[in-house]
Amino acid sequence: MSKQELEVLGQDAADACCAGLASAPLAEDRAAELAKLFKALGDPVRLRLLSMIASRDGGEVCVCELTPAFELSQPTISHHLKLLRQAGLIDCERRGTWVYYWVLPDTLDLLAQFLRTPQAAGAPA
Amino acid sequence: MSKQELEVLGQDAADACCAGLASAPLAEDRAAELAKLFKALGDPVRLRLLSMIASRDGGEVCVCELTPAFELSQPTISHHLKLLRQAGLIDCERRGTWVYYWVLPDTLDLLAQFLRTPQAAGAPA
Repeated sequence: MSKQELEVLGQDAADACCAGLASAPLAEDRAAELAKLFKALGDPVRLRLLSMIASRDGGEVCVCELTPAFELSQPTISHHLKLLRQAGLIDCERRGTWVYYWVLPDTLDLLAQFLRTPQAAGAPA
Repeated sequence: MSKQELEVLGQDAADACCAGLASAPLAEDRAAELAKLFKALGDPVRLRLLSMIASRDGGEVCVCELTPAFELSQPTISHHLKLLRQAGLIDCERRGTWVYYWVLPDTLDLLAQFLRTPQAAGAPA
């Protein structure tokens, strides 16, 4: 997936998310975009990686700290991180030997807003 | 999956969700439970079905109204509805010829709360 495609996906997902699941039936193209994001979250290793990154004080984590938490190879972890990045849930930067990851909170919050029902929206935050 | 397993899954997912993605690294068993829920959302047909049910005034929809919106067979739609039901996202009841579906907002709101970042939690709802 190209960077341009990701940006377009992100924008459309944002529009769709703000509407909320219960506000109107989801259009076919929006459903496809959002499904990609939820699919990226639909794996226990990716959820653990995302949580490890999101819960880190300072907001970023070296890949060298993520890998030892799993009984998986470095390429497998890198593959999961790549899928999270392609979904727009995290981003990264190489600094010297290591790659550092951080979450993109806007994507997470858009998904949270999309899932939130009128019942919860009416309740105290 | 038995009803008892679903209830246990729901309870554990609730505990995990309330903690929030960014509060601490996710335990392996919680990650597995939550990944099942997100996997259920990671399909465009299931997202559209869920949205059609959630956005309906009165809160419930006959399966006879869901099927015509898709170019898919009745068994395929039923299979997707079954996966949503097994994940605890919707429930249903047979009345005469037809089955009626409604969303379980608690599951959706727990997922929304799990995804919500401290950035959004600090913002106006």
